[in-house]
Amino acid sequence: MMKLDGHISQRFNQDLEDIRSRLLEMGGLVEQQLVKAMAAFESGDSELGLAVSKDDVEVNRLEVETEDLCTKILVKRQPAASDLRMVLAVSRIVRDLERMGDEAAKIADLGVRLAEEGSSPIGYVECRNIATRVREMINASLDAFARYDAEKARETMRVDEKVDDEYASALRSLVTYMMEDPRSIKRVMNVMWTLRSLERIGDHATNVCEQIIYLVEGEDMRHSFK
Amino acid sequence: MMKLDGHISQRFNQDLEDIRSRLLEMGGLVEQQLVKAMAAFESGDSELGLAVSKDDVEVNRLEVETEDLCTKILVKRQPAASDLRMVLAVSRIVRDLERMGDEAAKIADLGVRLAEEGSSPIGYVECRNIATRVREMINASLDAFARYDAEKARETMRVDEKVDDEYASALRSLVTYMMEDPRSIKRVMNVMWTLRSLERIGDHATNVCEQIIYLVEGEDMRHSFK
Repeated sequence: MMKLDGHISQRFNQDLEDIRSRLLEMGGLVEQQLVKAMAAFESGDSELGLAVSKDDVEVNRLEVETEDLCTKILVKRQPAASDLRMVLAVSRIVRDLERMGDEAAKIADLGVRLAEEGSSPIGYVECRNIATRVREMINASLDAFARYDAEKARETMRVDEKVDDEYASALRSLVTYMMEDPRSIKRVMNVMWTLRSLERIGDHATNVCEQIIYLVEGEDMRHSFK
Repeated sequence: MMKLDGHISQRFNQDLEDIRSRLLEMGGLVEQQLVKAMAAFESGDSELGLAVSKDDVEVNRLEVETEDLCTKILVKRQPAASDLRMVLAVSRIVRDLERMGDEAAKIADLGVRLAEEGSSPIGYVECRNIATRVREMINASLDAFARYDAEKARETMRVDEKVDDEYASALRSLVTYMMEDPRSIKRVMNVMWTLRSLERIGDHATNVCEQIIYLVEGEDMRHSFK
């Protein structure tokens, strides 16, 4: 575990603790958004869909606040080395969390649309499976952040390969289905966009993991996995 | 125009100039990537598609380099006020540029796939129109950055509303077409993913504009348009 003590200013520790805990709060909210969004998607419950949109306002507020705090820390405390990495990593991670929240809101909207247009004859199992995986990715990456655990971040990144495979395979079967039953196209398309959003949430969770590795090891992991 | 003189260190000016010019170089490359990607998409030319992938390696390299430079400036020069905003804005903008490059690479890949699976019977005009708009958005946002022109950034953001409208309308006509001619579904899907990537490029250009407004006016524009 990284040591946060030994600073000149006790207030500085407090600042770092503050952005860390906001990030974790925001991440927990985003995870719950995904859970609710999937429930709205499966049930077409527009009340639940609305709840996800409300959460999104809160997530956006937390993002702006946390980024403001990060900027203030940079200006006032002028952190170096691992403290600087912490501030930079937090400000990048909250952007990815915010985008995950956006995708969750899209999924909730698609659920409401499915309720209006009639539910899709196919694709729910695939969505559920991929949603479970990306939810685990969010959870594991927050855990890795809380413990400064680069190994766990690496493990979590590997889950995204499975997500991508399952996503590609689900798309193929949806296309086949639509070809056989063209009347289902509109409804199946809603499932397709949901899959796409889930896959993007997995990508954002991967970005979060890269930032955790950078935070812990000081190395920039981006593009090395591409 | 923002004044960059009057600093204690001449080297500091040089650093700021350095990240600015790298950003503009990277932006120019991404714009060209989009032009080539659309040519590959329309012609199914796999050589051109490959060229876009090569550009993407260069864009990724520029992103990592520029972000490293930004971090070094933060540590060594400890900038304040407008200089700090410049460093933070640049480090955020290059991330969006890099993601635009990723989307361009996806479009080039889809072009190659269309050449293999047979070209789509529909959707090229729509793609071309939206591509022209988002290319203008990239170009205008780089121009706004180079001149610190917040008004131009605001104008450019408004173009994205048109992009979103055209995108939604194009999707509707593609779905209608697929329902009438199910054998075309696979090929039309490739056009659909291309439209999706173009729309995302527009979103990233909007993010860039928000950062320019933040840079010039010191205000965070995010979420105020949502």
